[in-house]
Amino acid sequence: MNQSYNSVLLDNAIAELSKLPGIGHKTALRLALHLLRKDPEVAYALGNSVIEMRKGISYCPVCHNISESGVCSICSDNHRDHEVVCVVENIKDVITIERTHEHSGVYHVLGGLISPLDGISPSDLEIDSLVKRVEQDKISEVILALSPTMEGDTTNFYIYRKLSHLPVKVSVLARGISIGNELEYTDELTLGRSILNRTPFAK
Amino acid sequence: MNQSYNSVLLDNAIAELSKLPGIGHKTALRLALHLLRKDPEVAYALGNSVIEMRKGISYCPVCHNISESGVCSICSDNHRDHEVVCVVENIKDVITIERTHEHSGVYHVLGGLISPLDGISPSDLEIDSLVKRVEQDKISEVILALSPTMEGDTTNFYIYRKLSHLPVKVSVLARGISIGNELEYTDELTLGRSILNRTPFAK
Repeated sequence: MNQSYNSVLLDNAIAELSKLPGIGHKTALRLALHLLRKDPEVAYALGNSVIEMRKGISYCPVCHNISESGVCSICSDNHRDHEVVCVVENIKDVITIERTHEHSGVYHVLGGLISPLDGISPSDLEIDSLVKRVEQDKISEVILALSPTMEGDTTNFYIYRKLSHLPVKVSVLARGISIGNELEYTDELTLGRSILNRTPFAK
Repeated sequence: MNQSYNSVLLDNAIAELSKLPGIGHKTALRLALHLLRKDPEVAYALGNSVIEMRKGISYCPVCHNISESGVCSICSDNHRDHEVVCVVENIKDVITIERTHEHSGVYHVLGGLISPLDGISPSDLEIDSLVKRVEQDKISEVILALSPTMEGDTTNFYIYRKLSHLPVKVSVLARGISIGNELEYTDELTLGRSILNRTPFAK
């Protein structure tokens, strides 16, 4: 803090707001002044919603998705196929996949990807709990739905090896050209892979 | 809200965060997930600082700067020159001018500038209270320290006319070339004005 606004309360709020990712001192000041201009209820609602969220949300002990009370709503849904587990990086990806309406199974949230450069090793992720889940529960397929990046591929391979001794089918998301994209602008690696993995023409 | 994260608490926090200026739904989600990953204390500190700020900060009844208890620290400072009032747009400008250490008087925060396009008329600003202050208190000079924009100039002129019947000196900030800027890149209007308003060479 190299500035003081003659108010410890304002200084505090700016300090806390600027701890958020992507929010610097100037933006924090702008947000604080915005809250001071608006009705007090706006600031109270914001403050309370953040506190209540952090208080009320925990993680599902089964799939590590967020949950407000023990086992999450997906894991406790009997209409879903509990034999098919989709492995994702984080809870945002759970939502992304849910919106496709193409996965009727359950999830396993890793909490990140293996990335030695960022100091994230397999032990930092929920990989052991995934292996234990496959060992103990009746699981027929594990779908690795990680990003097609170096970190994602490393994690895919690590999990594949960890599961190789178990009688479970391990699959990854299909890679190929994006629907709606011009072929001209598709990168060569993806295009090459999509030729190798070509599928029978479906009328 | 076209997305739901299976948690009313998370949805709420995202909704409140995305009410902040410049923060959309995606950024709000990122901020919320950041708070969920960090220690609970981080979220509690943020929430409480915002609530406490809004609860504790009010406006100085004299100059309309922020204040934690009645008359602000500048207005209640006897070492300052209460005869010289510097008129600024908002509380950020109070800090900016304080940091120059060139103004030893007091302030009057308008709360904005006259801007018919944005629907801000003189009655929305603290102009009447400024006129009343000049009428009632012993004020020798009013320094108009508003931005050199169309809105600032409009407001300057409006205040100047409102004060014209009173025995008070009204001044505006000097306009000219910025210290440290190349002459080549100074705009013609500013350069022209700085020639007209040239000052005696000070050795």
